[in-house]
Amino acid sequence: MTDAPNDGRLHHWVFTLSCADGPGIVHAVSGAIVAARGNITESQQFASADTGRFFMRVQVESPAGRDEVEAALAPVVERWEMTWHLDEVARPLRTLVLASTAGHCVNDLLFRQRAGQLPIEIPLVLSNHGTLRDLVDFYGVPFESAAVTDAASKAAFERRVLEAVDEHDIELVVLARYMQILSPELCDALAGRCINIHHSFLPGFKGANPYRQAHARGVKLIGATAHFVTSDLDEGPIIEQNVVRVDHSRAVAELVAIGQDEESRTLSQAVKWFAERRVLLDGARTIIFR
Amino acid sequence: MTDAPNDGRLHHWVFTLSCADGPGIVHAVSGAIVAARGNITESQQFASADTGRFFMRVQVESPAGRDEVEAALAPVVERWEMTWHLDEVARPLRTLVLASTAGHCVNDLLFRQRAGQLPIEIPLVLSNHGTLRDLVDFYGVPFESAAVTDAASKAAFERRVLEAVDEHDIELVVLARYMQILSPELCDALAGRCINIHHSFLPGFKGANPYRQAHARGVKLIGATAHFVTSDLDEGPIIEQNVVRVDHSRAVAELVAIGQDEESRTLSQAVKWFAERRVLLDGARTIIFR
Amino acid sequence: MTDAPNDGRLHHWVFTLSCADGPGIVHAVSGAIVAARGNITESQQFASADTGRFFMRVQVESPAGRDEVEAALAPVVERWEMTWHLDEVARPLRTLVLASTAGHCVNDLLFRQRAGQLPIEIPLVLSNHGTLRDLVDFYGVPFESAAVTDAASKAAFERRVLEAVDEHDIELVVLARYMQILSPELCDALAGRCINIHHSFLPGFKGANPYRQAHARGVKLIGATAHFVTSDLDEGPIIEQNVVRVDHSRAVAELVAIGQDEESRTLSQAVKWFAERRVLLDGARTIIFR
Amino acid sequence: MTDAPNDGRLHHWVFTLSCADGPGIVHAVSGAIVAARGNITESQQFASADTGRFFMRVQVESPAGRDEVEAALAPVVERWEMTWHLDEVARPLRTLVLASTAGHCVNDLLFRQRAGQLPIEIPLVLSNHGTLRDLVDFYGVPFESAAVTDAASKAAFERRVLEAVDEHDIELVVLARYMQILSPELCDALAGRCINIHHSFLPGFKGANPYRQAHARGVKLIGATAHFVTSDLDEGPIIEQNVVRVDHSRAVAELVAIGQDEESRTLSQAVKWFAERRVLLDGARTIIFR
Repeated sequence: MTDAPNDGRLHHWVFTLSCADGPGIVHAVSGAIVAARGNITESQQFASADTGRFFMRVQVESPAGRDEVEAALAPVVERWEMTWHLDEVARPLRTLVLASTAGHCVNDLLFRQRAGQLPIEIPLVLSNHGTLRDLVDFYGVPFESAAVTDAASKAAFERRVLEAVDEHDIELVVLARYMQILSPELCDALAGRCINIHHSFLPGFKGANPYRQAHARGVKLIGATAHFVTSDLDEGPIIEQNVVRVDHSRAVAELVAIGQDEESRTLSQAVKWFAERRVLLDGARTIIFR
Repeated sequence: MTDAPNDGRLHHWVFTLSCADGPGIVHAVSGAIVAARGNITESQQFASADTGRFFMRVQVESPAGRDEVEAALAPVVERWEMTWHLDEVARPLRTLVLASTAGHCVNDLLFRQRAGQLPIEIPLVLSNHGTLRDLVDFYGVPFESAAVTDAASKAAFERRVLEAVDEHDIELVVLARYMQILSPELCDALAGRCINIHHSFLPGFKGANPYRQAHARGVKLIGATAHFVTSDLDEGPIIEQNVVRVDHSRAVAELVAIGQDEESRTLSQAVKWFAERRVLLDGARTIIFR
Repeated sequence: MTDAPNDGRLHHWVFTLSCADGPGIVHAVSGAIVAARGNITESQQFASADTGRFFMRVQVESPAGRDEVEAALAPVVERWEMTWHLDEVARPLRTLVLASTAGHCVNDLLFRQRAGQLPIEIPLVLSNHGTLRDLVDFYGVPFESAAVTDAASKAAFERRVLEAVDEHDIELVVLARYMQILSPELCDALAGRCINIHHSFLPGFKGANPYRQAHARGVKLIGATAHFVTSDLDEGPIIEQNVVRVDHSRAVAELVAIGQDEESRTLSQAVKWFAERRVLLDGARTIIFR
Repeated sequence: MTDAPNDGRLHHWVFTLSCADGPGIVHAVSGAIVAARGNITESQQFASADTGRFFMRVQVESPAGRDEVEAALAPVVERWEMTWHLDEVARPLRTLVLASTAGHCVNDLLFRQRAGQLPIEIPLVLSNHGTLRDLVDFYGVPFESAAVTDAASKAAFERRVLEAVDEHDIELVVLARYMQILSPELCDALAGRCINIHHSFLPGFKGANPYRQAHARGVKLIGATAHFVTSDLDEGPIIEQNVVRVDHSRAVAELVAIGQDEESRTLSQAVKWFAERRVLLDGARTIIFR
């Protein structure tokens, strides 16, 4: 993260915070923003009745650089014991993509990134298969693959993930249909900065081949859920969900294709919100400041 | 079901069938329709790869009365060992509604029935509470209530249901937020002609208070599923599903209110399709000829 | 609107404002809230790049009564020349409903109001037809009808509307499929507090019988738009829109029925947001603080 | 179109037809299918009350080759004066793509085509700009560009289109955000086999910069419409429409990005249905046999 000195240009800051709720927080934050010569361009806040936490996201235009803004905020974040983050709006988030053989999510992320619709940069795609090399090459993104076939190769792959996270200052890891279960250690190491996508149904189906189960039960809606990865498989905080209507005439393979479309757009949406610092955690729930 | 003699008027028939799939079925059916002086106004069919069954629904305009149409169809239904049903389009289906205290689904059914949007007639609403008497009275529909507090009163209530089914020639029983679990015996007695509605989430939540669980997990979509009742609780063939988007700001009570809207419209839609003979069963799946 | 003295209970206030944008507004508002012993429970704001206006809605819990809160806000609203409104959360909005013969929107509003889903009270339904008297009676709401057949009876009806607005301290007039065009004078008199509902299509169809046009063109989506009434017919600021999918098999009458469902839920949603003070005007656009 | 001789393999035929409605059509068609040793795997039909035309699409598995099937159908299509088409299911449709500078629709078509989700082959992309050369190259598809700057270069471009249609036996021309208005002559030459995509709003906005108008009016839904090209600009028969929800916080540029997503998926869906012979024309309406 490059510093932004008092260089005369107008900065666009995004400041997110959470703290125990209580009177006067907004007043204190807005006072600090006035002190930092800032004008609020967007602001959202939420007080969680569940956890008693207060959440806020503000975008602020100001000629002040990072040092000046941080100095103005310092007494406030200290007084309220805030968890906080200060960033420049639209700074590309350094994002590592993990993939396997399915290309739909990877293609969608790469295309939107290049089209300027996703404020991320992708220094590397890591895969446990070589299948997507050509696709990733086309977008000029480095691609590495290493087979995961047993405990040893899985451990090696996960070490490479952590190494790449360090090497490239990764801020977000996206599981773009990466079909391996992460070890609890890796889940913990990436907690709060690793997003997964999976198909979803009403009701949920446990066990193998859920599309086949959904077909057998004749579900009328299939969808996708993007969520944070936790060591509790597929049970992390939900970031975004979408569904689409299907009917009895769809074969299992068609349900899969339809589900993949939902996966692509749902994952890209979740990544976009995360990159824009719109996703905050309130226990097992996400606050989405859309 | 009143007979429709050769009375000179143009009838509008709906004929549904299922049988083992094989070549020539459509040809045989359409031949019988030609023989019955019929013109097809709507036709749908589906061959199930899962069960090898063939399903068809045709609407036919014809001056022929029931006897003539049945006579024309007889060799075909016999030759193909069809499960079949012949009815007049838009004949109101005799429908028994079971309710408890929540009025949203009952109100929606009654209003749409009166507004001419649902081809059903409701000779009776049975409830295990007196709460909805005024609402049901307003629509001029008979209302009976009897408390269900123990095994004996539950058995008595269920006997009254079966009695009412006989007494009023009931063709469909709708559980409009009837909050009692039906006994396996009643489920069996009403198999294929009893529709239930319940809330639905992605993923599904087991156990008590699912709205609270959905809130805690921060789901972004909540919905409703209308399904046939089977003795396997909430697991019968799905007829219709809908979802609506929610966000972190919704309290549990708001999620409940939003979910109730989806329940109302989803149940009414399922009842409409059933009454129009658009719902056929293929094992555990429904074929919906929309 | 009853005053809320310092009576010892905890009040829940909703404060909305708009003013020319500039630095320090949020700080000033939150300072006034601190002064009024308030805790912010919900807050949204928006700076319009189009008009240079700033919009804010805050919900505040405070032991302070109206006088104390107003006194704390006074210097701020004066300094920033704010357009503002202070109200108690969930206070039922006094709502006049105008109707003609179609019952779907009126029924939906009355049912939701009684079910506690809409924070409004309806002292009167006025109609140019007697058709809906029984429905409205059932909900215990006074009903008046007077035929509108010529310029004189139309003027009389509109005078009765304005009289009823005065008589009942009406804060919102809802055109629930009231099929008369309001005079420009009445539009002006009710500006910003009169909501209409009409069907909508992509693309829009001008002229008579749009459902027939939509059918002829084979549209795949039909919908509804709830909007503020202005003297520019059907062109007022949009509050809410919904669509639903249709296909070629739908006759014009079916499109109408489907459209009516969308009208009901879209209108009720718009009324709910308005009653909750979530709808602010930014030129010809609405800001919806959902 | 390659012939399919009696080569011993099981063919999968799709047969579409339209003709004046009347009794006995289905019976005649199904009789011909029996004669051609066919088994119906999917069938849809529709009688248009507007035009009095009857439409049908059947998929048939049969060991019979093209000659045998055509011979069996010949008396029927003659007797009923049918407009008809016989094809093999999943045969890739020869598709010419016209583009300008925007890549979203072209990328979506190419990716889905390669992923096996679209039964088309694309022998050529023609553009009036060179912008998309790299993208198209990546997918191994020939790309040609020629500037269109005046009447002469426009006429030359359109001649090249018609030439390419001949040269590559093109069955479908897709305007994938091709930003030139086709001449009436070209529209006529491509009638019924040229699909365009454009953004859509409720209500529609006429004139330049509709996203800006939609923003100014505060629309809550924006969408896209895929339609056949006719010489009446943007008014051809609608094939598919989608919408997505937006709110007041979206700048015009964001509305554009959101609209582009809808354009991509709506266009690909329309192309898929067309390629699968699911789109038939009934006057100014499409029949979509989904």
